[in-house]
Amino acid sequence: MTTTPQTPTLDRVAGPADLRRMDDRTLATLADELRTEVISAVSETGGHLGSSLGVVELAVAIHAVFNTPMDKLVWDVGHQCYPHKILTGRRDRIRTLRQKDGLSGFTKRSESEYDPFGAAHSSTSISAALGFTVGRDMGRPTGDAIAVIGDGSISAGMAYEAMNNAGAEGRRMFVILNDNEMSIAPPVGAMSSYLSRLYANEPLARMKSLAEGFESALPAPMRDGAKRARQLVTGALSGSGTLFEELGFDYIGPINGHDMDQLLPVLRAARTRATGPVLIHVCTVKGKGFAPAETSADRGHGVSKFDPVTGAQAKSKPNAPSYTKVFGQALTDAAARDPNIVAVTAAMPSGTGLDILADRFPARVFDVGIAEQHGVTFAAGMAASGLKPFCAIYSTFLQRGYDQVVHDVALQGLPVRFAIDRAGLVGADGATHAGAFDVAYLSNLPGFTVMAASDEAELMHMVETAAAHDAGPIAFRYPRGNGTGVTLPERGQVLQIGKGRVLQEGADVALLSFGAHLDEAQAAARLLEAEGLSVTIADARFAKPLDMELIGQLARHHAALITIEQGARGGFGAHVLQELAARGALDRGLAIRTMTLPDRFIDQASPDQMYADAGLTRQDIAAVALQALGREQKVVPLRMG
Amino acid sequence: MTTTPQTPTLDRVAGPADLRRMDDRTLATLADELRTEVISAVSETGGHLGSSLGVVELAVAIHAVFNTPMDKLVWDVGHQCYPHKILTGRRDRIRTLRQKDGLSGFTKRSESEYDPFGAAHSSTSISAALGFTVGRDMGRPTGDAIAVIGDGSISAGMAYEAMNNAGAEGRRMFVILNDNEMSIAPPVGAMSSYLSRLYANEPLARMKSLAEGFESALPAPMRDGAKRARQLVTGALSGSGTLFEELGFDYIGPINGHDMDQLLPVLRAARTRATGPVLIHVCTVKGKGFAPAETSADRGHGVSKFDPVTGAQAKSKPNAPSYTKVFGQALTDAAARDPNIVAVTAAMPSGTGLDILADRFPARVFDVGIAEQHGVTFAAGMAASGLKPFCAIYSTFLQRGYDQVVHDVALQGLPVRFAIDRAGLVGADGATHAGAFDVAYLSNLPGFTVMAASDEAELMHMVETAAAHDAGPIAFRYPRGNGTGVTLPERGQVLQIGKGRVLQEGADVALLSFGAHLDEAQAAARLLEAEGLSVTIADARFAKPLDMELIGQLARHHAALITIEQGARGGFGAHVLQELAARGALDRGLAIRTMTLPDRFIDQASPDQMYADAGLTRQDIAAVALQALGREQKVVPLRMG
Repeated sequence: MTTTPQTPTLDRVAGPADLRRMDDRTLATLADELRTEVISAVSETGGHLGSSLGVVELAVAIHAVFNTPMDKLVWDVGHQCYPHKILTGRRDRIRTLRQKDGLSGFTKRSESEYDPFGAAHSSTSISAALGFTVGRDMGRPTGDAIAVIGDGSISAGMAYEAMNNAGAEGRRMFVILNDNEMSIAPPVGAMSSYLSRLYANEPLARMKSLAEGFESALPAPMRDGAKRARQLVTGALSGSGTLFEELGFDYIGPINGHDMDQLLPVLRAARTRATGPVLIHVCTVKGKGFAPAETSADRGHGVSKFDPVTGAQAKSKPNAPSYTKVFGQALTDAAARDPNIVAVTAAMPSGTGLDILADRFPARVFDVGIAEQHGVTFAAGMAASGLKPFCAIYSTFLQRGYDQVVHDVALQGLPVRFAIDRAGLVGADGATHAGAFDVAYLSNLPGFTVMAASDEAELMHMVETAAAHDAGPIAFRYPRGNGTGVTLPERGQVLQIGKGRVLQEGADVALLSFGAHLDEAQAAARLLEAEGLSVTIADARFAKPLDMELIGQLARHHAALITIEQGARGGFGAHVLQELAARGALDRGLAIRTMTLPDRFIDQASPDQMYADAGLTRQDIAAVALQALGREQKVVPLRMG
Repeated sequence: MTTTPQTPTLDRVAGPADLRRMDDRTLATLADELRTEVISAVSETGGHLGSSLGVVELAVAIHAVFNTPMDKLVWDVGHQCYPHKILTGRRDRIRTLRQKDGLSGFTKRSESEYDPFGAAHSSTSISAALGFTVGRDMGRPTGDAIAVIGDGSISAGMAYEAMNNAGAEGRRMFVILNDNEMSIAPPVGAMSSYLSRLYANEPLARMKSLAEGFESALPAPMRDGAKRARQLVTGALSGSGTLFEELGFDYIGPINGHDMDQLLPVLRAARTRATGPVLIHVCTVKGKGFAPAETSADRGHGVSKFDPVTGAQAKSKPNAPSYTKVFGQALTDAAARDPNIVAVTAAMPSGTGLDILADRFPARVFDVGIAEQHGVTFAAGMAASGLKPFCAIYSTFLQRGYDQVVHDVALQGLPVRFAIDRAGLVGADGATHAGAFDVAYLSNLPGFTVMAASDEAELMHMVETAAAHDAGPIAFRYPRGNGTGVTLPERGQVLQIGKGRVLQEGADVALLSFGAHLDEAQAAARLLEAEGLSVTIADARFAKPLDMELIGQLARHHAALITIEQGARGGFGAHVLQELAARGALDRGLAIRTMTLPDRFIDQASPDQMYADAGLTRQDIAAVALQALGREQKVVPLRMG
């Protein structure tokens, strides 16, 4: 059901310049209309509704006060950018959000000059804003930089590093802390309790010297209304009272982020008077203004298409359980048998399926916050103490803990288990969330074992295998979404390390799949068989150690060998080639092709569309096989990235 | 010159248990003798003298008070561990520090049960200690965990993440902040100024409720001497006064880390009474007790062999300038011509050669502290503003910013220039500092350009090439140590992107080198020529984009093609293979071998010894070539990892 909201004020906005001609009352009306437009649009597309609703007034106020796009507005994570996109010339495409060829669900440089720095992973905005600030000071054509960062994101180490450096640099820049007291998970970490304590202060009683000093620095029209100004700059603490001030920032706040009568004057005053780095602490409600979001447990963090009146979300009809849920249940079953099993998540308990384990054994799940670096080494410490930690981090976010994987886990040979969800292409979240690189960046680490699940039963086996593997680090990857619907065993089996399996024996061409593209390989085999070919299908299971006995047999007994993986170059296929080369198995000729993600980033679409874009469909596999066999190509044109 | 210090007390120490039988006065004597032993040993081996001298008393006090190895002592970075190694049964091997088959220059699990968690990269200790703490609470056979971390290391985001999480967990554990007011570089960041302010407080006047509360918690014999106790627990601040307390830690300090009469009672009291996380702020002097170190600019951070009386270090006689210096000078020359060039270092201005640029243009070098995550994204922000940032980070430390390289630089195609020093094996610092993985983890990133310098003149070309390259991110790697001594040009040339060069044309075998192993490849060619073979030698210059025209020619016109690189699998050779396979160039046979670092970590030795261990000598190359040619092997046995 689609409603078309009445938005006469918003209809007059072609871009932020129009906001700067509106009075404060009109801007408040604009914000109300913008909220209805966001709800209407996301009801059609799905997306990060709650975060965007929380910053409607903030987006209006920033664009009204600052001189974007000359001033550089950097939204941290960027999933709250829908109001910003509507205001910055993208309203006509807002109903294409997160769809193929549509607007990205995040900020994106290539999409608009109003997106000076794209995002999707958290906690990068202050670093980027400091970069723009230095650019301004060195004469580049850029104005002030404004980072907008949530209370979850600012708790990450990277944001702390940036605050520390920005405080020491002392340059004029703005960090707006969008404090909604929850990131994706409920508040974690002492940082959040620190913010909560600030927020709990009685605003007027707590105004101290900084608030007073700031008030006196307000422009004349406002200074005249001193009492009103004091109300605007509520709760500012002086002296050594706040962490931000310790780091060298002037602190303003907290202020009500849904009250334009607070936001506009404070932002104007800050813009007028700031000489160094300023932190503006704005309190917002995630999901604000849409009751179904405000009252849901996750405040409408990520929603499907929904009814804009009732909030009822369209339900997909899964034919099979999600990989995430299968993992969570299998790990919980294993944990029931082995008291040494513990798990680590970086602010993603439900996204990783660890909420299932936490329901049963709450003391054995550790949510470290958005802190992948710490999370990995914390797991390494637990492993060194004799526990069996499962570190459940999405492929794309594990990149944040890469050095810790190398230096703390691999170098020490510690048996940390990495459960790598969202491997491969992930759909609407697009290129920034693709799990493209994990096989490449793990498989060359000495002593690592690297697995990929070809279906949800295999995932159960790999959970058991990892639980049983104390000899060193081990990782298993699996895709986003639902499994293939195979019958699940009562309990997974412990797999033999470094051994693949043959699903079908043939004579002409061998398809060697690593991971969840096995079903596509099987479909490709049907196409090849229709061409009269005899096809072997194998599931490698392991990228490290490789099953060189199996691979050697495939190479010797087939005219062509095709490897298939849902990952970038330098991964499974590359290692197969290097091992074959070292053994001289290429010396006398082998028509081998390694099918991987192409050498470009793939924009958002459905996963199937993305794999088609990537040249990894069953038709592509069949075409590559035919080409390798030197047969005339009959299936479809070959695309290689 | 070797002196043998008189150490009658130290001579009685077989392990930490012996310390627990000594009285405080004897322990102080022991510390003095231990200091002379450290100086004597490092005078013979070279190493991290200053850091180790700073923690002599601390090492004695911790081992005397805590129950190591059941209690888990984790030294952050681990380069200050020499006194600890002497006390924990490794005195007889202390003069083998950092040498082949000798003691590691860092803590290392495989070396001693007293090293429960190895290190070398900074800021991991609190995460690991929290892991042991959870292990203890879950019934593993482990006692209390103690992390000892410097003021530079604790400013990194990872340590902040760990403090945040440890504070929220609230479990009994100990973090000893070893505050010597300098990490490798002079103090950077607001964190250090915060610590300086704490240290500047008048200790007695500042004692407040926490100090008093702590005092009352002291064991009876000490509580009786309340005045003395107040002197011990100097400067403790109450309430919201310190960052550490905001994060949930009890704060004790600062105390004088060279005064056993402060250290011992405070550690004992903390051990007796702590119920949650405690931070003990200990102030030390790097290089303490050895005048030549105390008075040098870097406090004897890393020294060569030296005269233990005068401190005069053995000078190596370089025949050629170091790569680091050539880089710093070439970048400075380029910066003189282009005002948009800026540079970023993560607490390594002299290690990276950026001190040369900073001497000339101090406002254009940004030392962000130990903060690689922030540093990379900060550089990306500067690039987005139109500046030309050079991000100069060692290969092994760039791992800390890997996600930022992917998400903020590569995905956005921003022209950040990565100057990657210490690529390949690095000698005495060993496996933890090896630059093994950068080619693999960069070369599969879409839009990246990846170069490696085969000599110092090539490095100059690559600096110019990077400065001129605005089309996207670009990286160039070069090894630790001195160049080959080639004549340097006045100014580097801008290289054609994706084009290699042929040094010598032959007919039988092609040696295709990527990076600084070219001289070894040339030496291998001499060996092969002595066998009557005609050898082509090529320098790939680029791992991405590959020069497929050149590589295709090498493949077509030679009976064997050998790629050679100073890096792990999945890198240059792997990409050559995948591209050749995609083109069908392997279909009819190609005797190709990709020589890389082996699939194991290589312990410290001289770089030449390490490459021999790795199977990458000229003899190894020649042997692989002969084997690929199907010729009887005459040179040396082949070792492949």
